[in-house]
Amino acid sequence: MTQVYLAGTGMIPFGSHPNRTGRDMFAEAGLDALDDAGIAPDDIDELYYGNFLGTISENQGHQGPIMSEAIGATVPARCVESACASGGVAIRDAVRAIRIGDADVVLAGGMERMSNMDTTEATDGLARAADNLYEVRAGVTFPGAYALMARAYFETFGGNREDLAHIAVKNHDNALVNDHAHLQREITVEEVLDAPRIAEPFGLYDACPISDGAAALVLTSRAYAAKHDLDATVAITGSGHGGDTLALQDRPHLAKTPATRTAAEEAYDDAAIEPTDVDFAEVHDCFTIAEVLALEGLGLYRPGGAIDAARRGETCRDGNLPVNLSGGLKAKGHPVGATGVAQVIALKTLLEGVHPQSDAIDDTATIGIAQNAGGTVASATVHVLEVIE
Amino acid sequence: MTQVYLAGTGMIPFGSHPNRTGRDMFAEAGLDALDDAGIAPDDIDELYYGNFLGTISENQGHQGPIMSEAIGATVPARCVESACASGGVAIRDAVRAIRIGDADVVLAGGMERMSNMDTTEATDGLARAADNLYEVRAGVTFPGAYALMARAYFETFGGNREDLAHIAVKNHDNALVNDHAHLQREITVEEVLDAPRIAEPFGLYDACPISDGAAALVLTSRAYAAKHDLDATVAITGSGHGGDTLALQDRPHLAKTPATRTAAEEAYDDAAIEPTDVDFAEVHDCFTIAEVLALEGLGLYRPGGAIDAARRGETCRDGNLPVNLSGGLKAKGHPVGATGVAQVIALKTLLEGVHPQSDAIDDTATIGIAQNAGGTVASATVHVLEVIE
Repeated sequence: MTQVYLAGTGMIPFGSHPNRTGRDMFAEAGLDALDDAGIAPDDIDELYYGNFLGTISENQGHQGPIMSEAIGATVPARCVESACASGGVAIRDAVRAIRIGDADVVLAGGMERMSNMDTTEATDGLARAADNLYEVRAGVTFPGAYALMARAYFETFGGNREDLAHIAVKNHDNALVNDHAHLQREITVEEVLDAPRIAEPFGLYDACPISDGAAALVLTSRAYAAKHDLDATVAITGSGHGGDTLALQDRPHLAKTPATRTAAEEAYDDAAIEPTDVDFAEVHDCFTIAEVLALEGLGLYRPGGAIDAARRGETCRDGNLPVNLSGGLKAKGHPVGATGVAQVIALKTLLEGVHPQSDAIDDTATIGIAQNAGGTVASATVHVLEVIE
Repeated sequence: MTQVYLAGTGMIPFGSHPNRTGRDMFAEAGLDALDDAGIAPDDIDELYYGNFLGTISENQGHQGPIMSEAIGATVPARCVESACASGGVAIRDAVRAIRIGDADVVLAGGMERMSNMDTTEATDGLARAADNLYEVRAGVTFPGAYALMARAYFETFGGNREDLAHIAVKNHDNALVNDHAHLQREITVEEVLDAPRIAEPFGLYDACPISDGAAALVLTSRAYAAKHDLDATVAITGSGHGGDTLALQDRPHLAKTPATRTAAEEAYDDAAIEPTDVDFAEVHDCFTIAEVLALEGLGLYRPGGAIDAARRGETCRDGNLPVNLSGGLKAKGHPVGATGVAQVIALKTLLEGVHPQSDAIDDTATIGIAQNAGGTVASATVHVLEVIE
């Protein structure tokens, strides 16, 4: 199968863009990605687009053709939805389109517009990623669901609120130099612990913000990149996708995320790497505990090990395994459909040495991975990016 | 690439199921498909699911994992959305998963729950398949949009309301023996012409009904079918996908549907057939004019030719090219996400001789095609099914 190159990327700064439409935000990201790749809209073969709440936040479904037209193309386009993993699944399916030879150039991206909803509407909208019949109607919101997972984790493996606070502090610190991040503000462990409680054991700073944003990738086959002499040195060498029950009640263990494990094993196999080969990672830290669960699901730490690593600072920018150098969802922001795409952009720019945090990784670093999760990890994707000269 | 076999199918009768949930309807269809194939839920590798309005009609997004769990599996699952073509695109992406060797057994299906919304809510929901900024806010609904296309067609190629009425009469007639059809009632040309006008030139009987329903396919690789000695003699040999602008205003011609043309050319190439090889077709007749546009986009008639064919009865059950023997969207019903899947089920059962309309096709018929469209054909898929002994 052909190698899939990342020929270009584009994203708008994540944050609050109340006066921009979804198509406007996506057009900017998509056109930037095409410009970065040196590819014209006419050369795109297909578009894969991740979005979760457009039918509610903008009364707009069928966004594939809109986003295609917005970047000046009229190509086969679909919206891929897997809640907060929509972007990751869009990338996965786009990779396949190239690998199977149906497409040479694919635009994969995502967008979410959320700041035009008030907090209640947004919380209500996001709750649609949980089981409406068995969770939402019983009063479960996402802060509550992840809080249950955190409490189960503490009971099973130990750890406490203060350990989790280190993750929030780290990710805010990482975002300080990232001018595309929603929250560029230093916070301290004390501030995290003193923040208003939102769902025990979480305070407000254990949660990511509600963001607007868009991000896009131009993927090409190896042959296309070679023929057109593209400046493409980073490839997506592994892709994996895992699933779990939507409702927490149906799972045997609340402190483990088998969907991430399944996705990781598939992605590592696909790329022919081991977890120990991973140099750095972007993971889905919608809540602080989610980063812990992700790192263990990815096999980068044993079950119960990632919270110790957070406390010890191993995942900080100067640690052994830098995690969420972009600021993560926690500080970079979480415009749902765009999140998984932005993770891959962070990896690519870090590998190329053009990310503001690039000096945090060794010159010898060649492998980064991205883990994107939907709901309480009922869906997960993992992608492996490697430098291929 | 491996051949993709249709190992099993399942669908619930389309119609009004106000007391059933989406997961309940899909579970019945999915489990019936598995039972038909003789395959256990544990043997599924992936799930592709088409749905359009679940976030509104049931406050439920992230339906992939729900539907997976509903059939007793916990596999990677995504929702694929392309408005009324969601089911067709789900099938297309499922076919790819098998062809590329990532999966041996895939469940591809779709569901829509609509009767729990009143007509205003449903019309408002369906309008999300059009361009909210440039069409919906200007007052365009789907009956209005397709009425514009019909008027452009009449102006360009000729034809009139009475010609279109023959299509409604034919599809109602075809549905009379289909106990899975929403509307099993004979109608006459006079009744169609006398029905209340909904958008000139359409009366009420030019439009399909608003339906609930679910449909599912079990697809397997050729190797899997052989190894497990499955009773599978029909394969999906061609798949195509086309795109167009979402808004009608941005198109050079309102009486042509290049998205269908693109999808058809790709599907015919893929299956190595010509339009003249097609024995019968299921096409997306959400309005009577849509059947005309589909048959011309598919290359089965020259531009302007399909309306003459309708008048002459060529697409009736005893005509040269039977179209919508299932009753089509017009009479079988149109539960959006399930529609493209149900079309393929009709083709398979017709090819196998187990559809109530099977006596309408020649014993020598071996090739059927399905065309599924989204919005005003901003998205289209075409699939070719063939008997492969």
